[in-house]
Formats: sequence, C-alpha cells, structure tokens
Amino acid sequence: MKKTIRICMAGFGHVGQRFCRLLQEQAAQLAQNYHCQILLTGVCTRSKGLLLHPDGLDLTQILTSPWQQLPGWRSGNVLDMIACAQADIFLELTTLDIKKGQPATDHIQAAFNHNMHVITANKGPLAWHFQELTRQAQQKQLAFYYETTVMDGAPIFNLAANCLPGDHVCAIRGILNGTSNFVLHRLAAGDTLAEAIRQAQAIELAEADPSMDIDGYDAAAKICALANVLMQANQTPQDVQIEGIRHISAAQLAQAKEDGYCLKPIASATKAADGSVQLRVTPQRIAKDDWLAHIDATSAALELSCQLCGNIAIVQRDPAILQTAYGVYSDMLQVISHHI
Amino acid sequence: MKKTIRICMAGFGHVGQRFCRLLQEQAAQLAQNYHCQILLTGVCTRSKGLLLHPDGLDLTQILTSPWQQLPGWRSGNVLDMIACAQADIFLELTTLDIKKGQPATDHIQAAFNHNMHVITANKGPLAWHFQELTRQAQQKQLAFYYETTVMDGAPIFNLAANCLPGDHVCAIRGILNGTSNFVLHRLAAGDTLAEAIRQAQAIELAEADPSMDIDGYDAAAKICALANVLMQANQTPQDVQIEGIRHISAAQLAQAKEDGYCLKPIASATKAADGSVQLRVTPQRIAKDDWLAHIDATSAALELSCQLCGNIAIVQRDPAILQTAYGVYSDMLQVISHHI
Repeated sequence: MKKTIRICMAGFGHVGQRFCRLLQEQAAQLAQNYHCQILLTGVCTRSKGLLLHPDGLDLTQILTSPWQQLPGWRSGNVLDMIACAQADIFLELTTLDIKKGQPATDHIQAAFNHNMHVITANKGPLAWHFQELTRQAQQKQLAFYYETTVMDGAPIFNLAANCLPGDHVCAIRGILNGTSNFVLHRLAAGDTLAEAIRQAQAIELAEADPSMDIDGYDAAAKICALANVLMQANQTPQDVQIEGIRHISAAQLAQAKEDGYCLKPIASATKAADGSVQLRVTPQRIAKDDWLAHIDATSAALELSCQLCGNIAIVQRDPAILQTAYGVYSDMLQVISHHI
Repeated sequence: MKKTIRICMAGFGHVGQRFCRLLQEQAAQLAQNYHCQILLTGVCTRSKGLLLHPDGLDLTQILTSPWQQLPGWRSGNVLDMIACAQADIFLELTTLDIKKGQPATDHIQAAFNHNMHVITANKGPLAWHFQELTRQAQQKQLAFYYETTVMDGAPIFNLAANCLPGDHVCAIRGILNGTSNFVLHRLAAGDTLAEAIRQAQAIELAEADPSMDIDGYDAAAKICALANVLMQANQTPQDVQIEGIRHISAAQLAQAKEDGYCLKPIASATKAADGSVQLRVTPQRIAKDDWLAHIDATSAALELSCQLCGNIAIVQRDPAILQTAYGVYSDMLQVISHHI
C-alpha cells in the first residue's frame, strides 16, 4: 500500500523550485521503490506569502502561476505555515543569515514542536545552534538532516554518519566557497578583483552582493557547521578566524606562482593541543603538484583526516542546481526510509 | 548486556594481522559503543594451517608465536575451518586469483551455507560471481560486505549503498592501481621501467612480481567489481578491454607532457548506446589542469557520474595498511549494527 507523506517548505527560490520539479520527475520512482507519494501541503516565502492545501498543492501551478491567484493562498509567515500545514517533514530552504542563523532556527524549532522531521539546506542553524537542535530532535524522536548545507548533494554528513563507523574525524580542510575559489583563480590569471567578480556573476556563481563569499563568511558558516557536526566543536561563526580574499595583491599571487604554489581559499578545522577545535578561513598556499591546487571553476573539495580511515576527500565537479535539489531529496529519502 | 560475536578468517597476511591488532586496540570502544566483544574462533592460511578455539583465540599469541605451538592448531584448509569455527561472521582475506576468483568464491559460499555473514577484502568473488553470491546471501538473509576490495577503507560501496538514495551511477572512472600510477609517474620523470618498478617495490607498493599491476589485471578486477555492484553490469574480468603500461615509450610520455597532459592509468565503466556497460583499463591522457592528473604516489581516486548527484569523487591520500584493516573493521561494524 502506498504511504502518503506530507511535506511543507519555507523558501521557494532556485532550490525549492528545482526540488518541486524533481518531485514530479521522480514520482514514479517514489511510488515503485519507496511505496509513497509526496504531497506538498504548505509553502511560504517572504515576498509571495503562503499557500496551504491539506490534499497537496498542484506543483505545476505553484511553479508557473502567480500565487495570489491560486486556491489556498493567504498572507502569513513560515510559522503560520508550520502551524497549519499538518506535514510530516519540514524543509528549511530560506537564505542564510550569517549573523545569528535566524529566523531559520526558529522555523526548525517550531517544526519540531509540531512533531515534524526537519531537513535544512540553510547552514545557519548548524553553525549557530547545532547542539540545541540535535537535542530537541532526539527528545522528540524526530529526524534532523542537513546534507545540502555543505557541497550541495555530495554526501558529506551522511557519509560521516553512515560510512565511517567506529572512526573519528581529527581534522577537516576544504575548498568550500566557489566564488572565492573562482575569483582567486581569475586574479592569478591577471584579472582585477572587479573583473573577476563580474565574471563570477556572469556565470551565476556570485550573487549581486558577493561580500559574504569574498570576505569569507559563507565558508566560515560551512566550516563551523562541519566542525559542529563531525568534530563536536560546539562553536559559532564568531569563533572562526576569518581572512577573506579582498586584499590579495597581484604581487602575492605572482610570488606564490614563482614558488610553485597556488593560492586557494581554504577552510579548516584542526584540533589544538588542549583538545579545542580551531576554525579558520584563509587563503593558503597549496603546492602545484597537490591535487587540491587544481580544484578550479565551481568545483569543491573536502578532506577529512580520520583516525582509522586516514585521509579521504570528497570532490564535487561543477555542480548545478539539480545537485542542490538532490541534497534535499536524498535527505527526504533518508527520512522516509528510516523515520516514517 | 554485552553481545559475544564470533568471527573466523581465511588469510593472515598484513591485512589480517593489522585487523587483529585493531580488534585489540578497539576492544574498549566495541564494548562501549557497540555493546559487544569479538572472539576470533578460527583462522587459517595455506602455509600455517588452521587454528580453532570455541572461546576465542589469544590474539597476541597468534600474532607473535609459531602457530604449531599454540593450542587449537591442526592441519586443514579454509573449508575445514568454516565447518568447525561456529562463527557469526566469515572474513575472506586471501590473496586475489584474477583468473577465476577462486578459491575465495568457494569459501564465501561455504560460509553462507554455514549461516555466516560474509566480509571479503578479496575482489575476485565480486569480479567473477557477484550476482550469484548476492542472490545466495539474500536467500539466506545474510549480510555480504566488501568495502575493502577497492581503495581499502575509503567508503565506496557503502557510500553508494547508504548515501545516494534514489540515484543511479551512470559512469565510473578512476585511478585504482597504485603501482601503475607510481610507475607511470616515474617513467615520466625519466626512469626506466625496471628502475620505476624497483622503486615501487622499495616502498612496498609493488609486489615481487608486479605484472598483475603493470599489465592492468588488478585494476580490471576492481573496475569489474565496481561495475557489477554499482551499475549491475554482470560482467567478468574477461570482458574488460585491458591495456597495461608496460609498453609506454619515453616518446609517448614526452609528447603528452609537451601537449599539456599527463598519462594516467585509468579504469572506467561507461554505458554504451545499447545500454551495455563497457569496461576499460588503459593509460589515458589527462589534462594537467585537471585535479585527476595530480593523484600521485600511492593515492587513489574514483569518480562517479550520477544521474542526480552529478559528478562526485572519492580521493584517498597515501593509504597505509591500517586503512585496509579499517575497511574490514568498518564492514564488521555494519554487520554488527544492522544484521546481528
């Protein structure tokens, strides 16, 4: 017999829209392999308002029509939606607020209070309130998944949780911010900062205001999320030692090249002698014969130094929006397989 | 209450010995986190004979003393051991026979017949008899794990099984044979083949007879195992188009370098237009600005092209014997967590 699973989501940008199309594309697979059908019973954005339907919204309509013309539309915020959507799973897909991880953390706590499993693509809650949220999920025996927060759909958190049994992550190092990596690469090729940023914007890598990326805050939230989950760091982005790439000079880049190095925007988490975890985001020299020096364009890489498994890395080559949507989708399948 | 789990193993080379030391090192963790103690009730090698003890062999003794002097020693083979060891889990750690995957496949089938879960570090059975063995395991509701067969303890098979739900692997490409990779790198640096092989042997990378590696058969068994498990290829090493690196000339290497390429020993599995899977092991030109061109020394890399997750790769940097032993250990923990 087919199970009906109700989901609701906050945010309906590129990721949310691609995720809805993925639900349509995968409906037959979901029925056949997971014996379920997914109903989207609520969706909400700050600008468009709120759509609710207990029998499931029409995905094609919400992707193509103005929401105010659709049945089930009303004004309201995400907390209103969570209170009314009667969903099994809440998807937090709003944009990152690096300063406090809000209002995403409030959304997630409200969803737990309404007995929903939670999937977040927003890394703020992990960077600011991971321990608290995990405790709350455990108390209510609810699932809390967040694969998409770092390197889109590439398995990082699920890999550590499911594929490294009995092991410990001792250190983390990665190239986690595509815009910084792209811009540094262009600077090394001779572009000015403004030109490099314009190019990153032209390929839809950088946003209109690229400062979150260029100044290291996005990578700081990511390494903080990683360290909190994989190394029990219990830190916040305020604890990350951050150096952006805005002030890298042509002379620095030329000198690095002459010495056989590339400059790469590296985020890292290492254990200090006293056992505390030190988080850094900073441009670093990587030797040209190291494969990490050749993670270019929009690709990303994350190395984990493990006590038993040694040094392993995940590389993601040129991800597109489908890969981000798949991160949310794969978390949803984990919830369906193990928690519903 | 602590569970007692009985294991027996075929083969006691570097991997088996390091695995036994790992069991000793992790005994407290196993008790605390997995609520179990492990007893090795049987172990067998072709040269040393057979040791059996229903209450568990003394690991320190078998690591340090001549077996014939130990209680429980007798002559006999692996099938004798499987019949007598009364174990929950059988570990197949004998060396690869590339020609038929035997006698490892017979060992595994015997273990299934004695209702044991099976962990193999020997890739022959996957390359030659994967479907058959999987069917047998399913019929008897027994676990069958094989993480160590490709890239030691780095999660490949468990990653695909646990972290890519709802997705499909469309193509595989990797640098899977350390000796070939090392030798090609040395050839490019100007060494002769004999010199390069001697160096690979000096760092204990290549075996006394390096032909299995140099001529591509080891990588062929690996890509076949990968394709059988991840792409349902149902092929054998006989189906792999193999070109070793023995006949690579200095001129070829120099030309590649001049054109901006490295030669790398690439194993690949791709889907042909008719849906069949084509397996190849061959030296290929990889552009110097591609990160795969810089997987050197003993490191390995495997790229998976997935329908939804896109192009992701696992890189393993300079593995040691502990990483191989961890592959077996992590499979054992999967069996304990999910099947016992």
